[in-house]
Amino acid sequence: MKNDSDNKLRFIGVVRSTLKNLEDCPLQESEQAPSAAIEISHDFVGIRTLKPGDAIVLLTWFHKSDRSVIECYPRNEVNAPALGVFSTRSPNRPNPIGIHKVTITAIEHNVIAVDALEALDGTPVIDIKPVI
Amino acid sequence: MKNDSDNKLRFIGVVRSTLKNLEDCPLQESEQAPSAAIEISHDFVGIRTLKPGDAIVLLTWFHKSDRSVIECYPRNEVNAPALGVFSTRSPNRPNPIGIHKVTITAIEHNVIAVDALEALDGTPVIDIKPVI
Repeated sequence: MKNDSDNKLRFIGVVRSTLKNLEDCPLQESEQAPSAAIEISHDFVGIRTLKPGDAIVLLTWFHKSDRSVIECYPRNEVNAPALGVFSTRSPNRPNPIGIHKVTITAIEHNVIAVDALEALDGTPVIDIKPVI
Repeated sequence: MKNDSDNKLRFIGVVRSTLKNLEDCPLQESEQAPSAAIEISHDFVGIRTLKPGDAIVLLTWFHKSDRSVIECYPRNEVNAPALGVFSTRSPNRPNPIGIHKVTITAIEHNVIAVDALEALDGTPVIDIKPVI
Protein backbone atom coordinates (compact mmCIF):
# COMPACT_ATOMS: atom_id res chain seq x y z
CA MET A 1 0.00 0.00 0.00
CA LYS A 2 1.42 3.33 -0.96
CA ASN A 3 0.08 5.09 2.07
CA ASP A 4 0.47 3.26 5.38
CA SER A 5 -2.24 5.34 7.01
CA ASP A 6 -4.74 4.10 4.40
CA ASN A 7 -6.98 2.17 6.75
CA LYS A 8 -10.34 3.20 5.35
CA LEU A 9 -12.54 0.43 3.97
CA ARG A 10 -13.82 0.65 0.41
CA PHE A 11 -17.29 -0.81 0.14
CA ILE A 12 -17.48 -3.08 -2.91
CA GLY A 13 -21.21 -3.67 -2.73
CA VAL A 14 -24.25 -4.01 -0.55
CA VAL A 15 -26.50 -6.78 0.82
CA ARG A 16 -30.09 -6.96 -0.45
CA SER A 17 -32.18 -8.98 1.99
CA THR A 18 -35.64 -9.42 3.45
CA LEU A 19 -34.01 -8.76 6.86
CA LYS A 20 -34.81 -5.08 7.26
CA ASN A 21 -34.32 -4.60 11.01
CA LEU A 22 -32.09 -6.05 13.70
CA GLU A 23 -35.16 -7.67 15.30
CA ASP A 24 -35.68 -9.70 12.10
CA CYS A 25 -32.33 -11.44 12.48
CA PRO A 26 -32.07 -15.08 13.51
CA LEU A 27 -29.71 -15.79 16.40
CA GLN A 28 -27.41 -17.97 14.32
CA GLU A 29 -26.76 -18.33 10.61
CA SER A 30 -28.08 -21.89 10.85
CA GLU A 31 -31.40 -20.66 12.20
CA GLN A 32 -33.24 -19.94 8.99
CA ALA A 33 -31.25 -17.06 7.59
CA PRO A 34 -32.91 -16.14 4.30
CA SER A 35 -31.37 -16.22 0.86
CA ALA A 36 -30.03 -12.84 -0.18
CA ALA A 37 -28.33 -10.94 -2.96
CA ILE A 38 -25.11 -8.98 -3.14
CA GLU A 39 -25.13 -5.96 -5.42
CA ILE A 40 -21.57 -5.24 -6.47
CA SER A 41 -20.88 -1.56 -7.07
CA HIS A 42 -17.11 -1.88 -7.38
CA ASP A 43 -15.67 -2.53 -10.86
CA PHE A 44 -17.18 -5.96 -11.25
CA VAL A 45 -14.45 -7.46 -13.36
CA GLY A 46 -13.40 -8.64 -9.89
CA ILE A 47 -16.35 -11.08 -9.76
CA ARG A 48 -16.36 -12.27 -13.37
CA THR A 49 -14.76 -15.65 -12.62
CA LEU A 50 -17.16 -16.50 -9.79
CA LYS A 51 -19.93 -18.95 -10.69
CA PRO A 52 -23.03 -20.64 -9.26
CA GLY A 53 -22.08 -23.45 -6.89
CA ASP A 54 -18.95 -21.67 -5.64
CA ALA A 55 -18.54 -21.62 -1.87
CA ILE A 56 -17.33 -18.19 -0.81
CA VAL A 57 -16.43 -16.30 2.31
CA LEU A 58 -18.23 -12.99 2.29
CA LEU A 59 -16.95 -10.20 4.52
CA THR A 60 -19.46 -7.56 5.55
CA TRP A 61 -19.30 -4.41 7.64
CA PHE A 62 -21.98 -4.37 10.35
CA HIS A 63 -22.60 -0.66 10.01
CA LYS A 64 -25.23 -0.55 12.77
CA SER A 65 -22.82 -1.82 15.41
CA ASP A 66 -21.52 -0.19 18.56
CA ARG A 67 -17.75 -0.07 18.11
CA SER A 68 -17.06 0.92 21.73
CA VAL A 69 -17.95 -2.51 23.19
CA ILE A 70 -15.06 -4.40 24.87
CA GLU A 71 -17.03 -6.83 27.06
CA CYS A 72 -20.36 -8.52 26.62
CA TYR A 73 -22.67 -11.20 27.99
CA PRO A 74 -23.38 -14.54 26.34
CA ARG A 75 -26.83 -14.61 24.76
CA ASN A 76 -29.54 -16.33 26.78
CA GLU A 77 -27.25 -16.56 29.81
CA VAL A 78 -28.07 -13.51 31.86
CA ASN A 79 -26.21 -14.75 34.93
CA ALA A 80 -23.03 -15.73 33.12
CA PRO A 81 -19.91 -13.62 33.65
CA ALA A 82 -18.99 -11.03 31.05
CA LEU A 83 -16.71 -12.11 28.22
CA GLY A 84 -14.03 -10.04 26.56
CA VAL A 85 -15.45 -9.06 23.19
CA PHE A 86 -12.74 -11.04 21.36
CA SER A 87 -14.07 -14.24 22.96
CA THR A 88 -17.41 -13.62 21.26
CA ARG A 89 -18.95 -13.28 17.81
CA SER A 90 -20.93 -10.20 18.82
CA PRO A 91 -21.42 -7.73 15.97
CA ASN A 92 -20.69 -4.99 18.51
CA ARG A 93 -16.87 -4.79 18.51
CA PRO A 94 -14.11 -2.36 17.52
CA ASN A 95 -14.12 -3.48 13.87
CA PRO A 96 -17.56 -4.96 13.16
CA ILE A 97 -16.59 -7.29 10.33
CA GLY A 98 -18.96 -10.17 9.58
CA ILE A 99 -17.61 -13.42 8.13
CA HIS A 100 -20.20 -15.46 6.25
CA LYS A 101 -19.62 -18.75 4.49
CA VAL A 102 -22.24 -18.92 1.73
CA THR A 103 -22.83 -20.64 -1.59
CA ILE A 104 -23.51 -18.74 -4.80
CA THR A 105 -26.83 -19.78 -6.36
CA ALA A 106 -26.84 -17.39 -9.35
CA ILE A 107 -24.98 -14.45 -10.84
CA GLU A 108 -26.45 -11.88 -13.19
CA HIS A 109 -24.37 -8.89 -14.21
CA ASN A 110 -23.31 -7.29 -10.94
CA VAL A 111 -25.70 -9.22 -8.67
CA ILE A 112 -24.70 -12.38 -6.83
CA ALA A 113 -27.47 -14.48 -5.26
CA VAL A 114 -26.46 -16.53 -2.20
CA ASP A 115 -28.20 -19.29 -0.32
CA ALA A 116 -28.45 -18.03 3.28
CA LEU A 117 -27.08 -14.88 4.82
CA GLU A 118 -27.56 -13.30 8.21
CA ALA A 119 -27.01 -9.64 7.37
CA LEU A 120 -29.41 -6.73 7.20
CA ASP A 121 -30.55 -5.20 3.94
CA GLY A 122 -28.13 -2.37 3.21
CA THR A 123 -25.12 -3.92 4.97
CA PRO A 124 -21.93 -2.96 3.12
CA VAL A 125 -19.88 -5.77 1.57
CA ILE A 126 -16.11 -5.42 1.84
CA ASP A 127 -14.61 -8.64 0.43
CA ILE A 128 -15.30 -11.98 -1.22
CA LYS A 129 -12.80 -14.84 -1.02
CA PRO A 130 -13.02 -18.41 -2.33
CA VAL A 131 -13.32 -21.10 0.32
CA ILE A 132 -10.12 -23.19 0.29
CA MET B 1 -22.85 2.74 14.70
CA LYS B 2 -23.67 6.34 15.36
CA ASN B 3 -22.03 7.57 12.19
CA ASP B 4 -22.79 5.60 9.04
CA SER B 5 -19.74 7.00 7.28
CA ASP B 6 -17.50 5.54 9.98
CA ASN B 7 -15.68 3.02 7.80
CA LYS B 8 -12.19 3.53 9.13
CA LEU B 9 -10.55 0.51 10.74
CA ARG B 10 -9.21 0.76 14.29
CA PHE B 11 -6.07 -1.28 14.70
CA ILE B 12 -6.29 -3.32 17.92
CA GLY B 13 -2.73 -4.60 17.80
CA VAL B 14 0.18 -5.66 15.68
CA VAL B 15 1.85 -8.91 14.55
CA ARG B 16 5.35 -9.66 15.86
CA SER B 17 7.02 -12.21 13.59
CA THR B 18 10.34 -13.39 12.19
CA LEU B 19 8.80 -12.71 8.74
CA LYS B 20 10.29 -9.28 8.05
CA ASN B 21 9.87 -9.01 4.27
CA LEU B 22 7.38 -10.23 1.69
CA GLU B 23 10.09 -12.51 0.25
CA ASP B 24 10.24 -14.35 3.59
CA CYS B 25 6.62 -15.45 3.32
CA PRO B 26 5.67 -19.06 2.57
CA LEU B 27 3.20 -19.52 -0.27
CA GLN B 28 0.56 -21.09 1.94
CA GLU B 29 -0.13 -21.02 5.67
CA SER B 30 0.49 -24.77 5.72
CA GLU B 31 3.98 -24.30 4.30
CA GLN B 32 5.98 -23.67 7.43
CA ALA B 33 4.54 -20.38 8.60
CA PRO B 34 6.38 -19.53 11.83
CA SER B 35 4.87 -19.06 15.26
CA ALA B 36 4.22 -15.41 16.02
CA ALA B 37 2.91 -13.03 18.66
CA ILE B 38 0.09 -10.49 18.66
CA GLU B 39 0.70 -7.37 20.71
CA ILE B 40 -2.65 -5.92 21.66
CA SER B 41 -2.64 -2.14 21.96
CA HIS B 42 -6.39 -1.72 22.28
CA ASP B 43 -7.88 -1.83 25.78
CA PHE B 44 -7.03 -5.44 26.44
CA VAL B 45 -10.02 -6.23 28.65
CA GLY B 46 -11.28 -7.46 25.28
CA ILE B 47 -8.85 -10.42 25.35
CA ARG B 48 -9.05 -11.30 29.04
CA THR B 49 -11.25 -14.36 28.55
CA LEU B 50 -9.07 -15.89 25.81
CA LYS B 51 -6.79 -18.73 26.93
CA PRO B 52 -4.08 -21.05 25.64
CA GLY B 53 -5.53 -23.82 23.48
CA ASP B 54 -8.29 -21.59 22.09
CA ALA B 55 -8.73 -21.75 18.32
CA ILE B 56 -9.28 -18.24 17.00
CA VAL B 57 -9.83 -16.46 13.72
CA LEU B 58 -7.42 -13.56 13.51
CA LEU B 59 -8.19 -10.77 11.07
CA THR B 60 -5.24 -8.73 9.84
CA TRP B 61 -4.82 -5.78 7.50
CA PHE B 62 -2.20 -6.44 4.83
CA HIS B 63 -0.89 -2.90 4.88
CA LYS B 64 1.70 -3.49 2.14
CA SER B 65 -0.94 -4.50 -0.42
CA ASP B 66 -1.92 -2.90 -3.69
CA ARG B 67 -5.60 -2.04 -3.29
CA SER B 68 -6.13 -1.23 -6.97
CA VAL B 69 -5.91 -4.88 -8.14
CA ILE B 70 -9.11 -6.32 -9.69
CA GLU B 71 -7.64 -9.23 -11.68
CA CYS B 72 -4.68 -11.47 -11.10
CA TYR B 73 -2.95 -14.63 -12.25
CA PRO B 74 -2.86 -17.91 -10.35
CA ARG B 75 0.53 -18.50 -8.73
CA ASN B 76 2.86 -20.84 -10.59
CA GLU B 77 0.54 -20.86 -13.61
CA VAL B 78 1.90 -18.17 -15.88
CA ASN B 79 -0.18 -19.27 -18.86
CA ALA B 80 -3.47 -19.52 -17.01
CA PRO B 81 -6.15 -16.91 -17.70
CA ALA B 82 -6.54 -14.00 -15.32
CA LEU B 83 -8.95 -14.43 -12.45
CA GLY B 84 -11.19 -11.76 -10.97
CA VAL B 85 -9.59 -10.82 -7.67
CA PHE B 86 -12.61 -12.11 -5.71
CA SER B 87 -11.92 -15.62 -7.04
CA THR B 88 -8.49 -15.50 -5.37
CA ARG B 89 -6.89 -15.20 -1.96
CA SER B 90 -4.37 -12.62 -3.18
CA PRO B 91 -3.41 -10.07 -0.52
CA ASN B 92 -3.64 -7.45 -3.28
CA ARG B 93 -7.35 -6.55 -3.32
CA PRO B 94 -9.61 -3.57 -2.55
CA ASN B 95 -9.78 -4.38 1.18
CA PRO B 96 -6.67 -6.41 2.04
CA ILE B 97 -8.04 -8.30 5.04
CA GLY B 98 -6.24 -11.49 6.02
CA ILE B 99 -8.18 -14.32 7.71
CA HIS B 100 -5.98 -16.65 9.76
CA LYS B 101 -7.17 -19.63 11.76
CA VAL B 102 -4.61 -20.07 14.55
CA THR B 103 -4.32 -21.60 18.00
CA ILE B 104 -3.28 -19.63 21.06
CA THR B 105 -0.20 -21.14 22.72
CA ALA B 106 0.29 -18.59 25.51
CA ILE B 107 -0.99 -15.24 26.76
CA GLU B 108 0.94 -12.82 28.92
CA HIS B 109 -0.52 -9.42 29.70
CA ASN B 110 -1.29 -7.90 26.28
CA VAL B 111 0.68 -10.41 24.20
CA ILE B 112 -0.91 -13.47 22.59
CA ALA B 113 1.40 -16.16 21.21
CA VAL B 114 0.02 -18.21 18.32
CA ASP B 115 1.19 -21.39 16.64
CA ALA B 116 1.64 -20.48 12.97
CA LEU B 117 0.88 -17.25 11.18
CA GLU B 118 1.62 -16.06 7.67
CA ALA B 119 1.78 -12.30 8.24
CA LEU B 120 4.66 -9.88 8.20
CA ASP B 121 6.10 -8.35 11.34
CA GLY B 122 4.26 -5.07 11.84
CA THR B 123 1.02 -6.18 10.18
CA PRO B 124 -1.93 -4.49 11.92
CA VAL B 125 -4.47 -6.74 13.66
CA ILE B 126 -8.12 -5.72 13.35
CA ASP B 127 -10.17 -8.47 14.99
CA ILE B 128 -10.11 -11.75 16.91
CA LYS B 129 -13.09 -14.11 16.90
CA PRO B 130 -13.54 -17.53 18.48
CA VAL B 131 -13.77 -20.45 16.04
CA ILE B 132 -17.30 -21.88 16.18
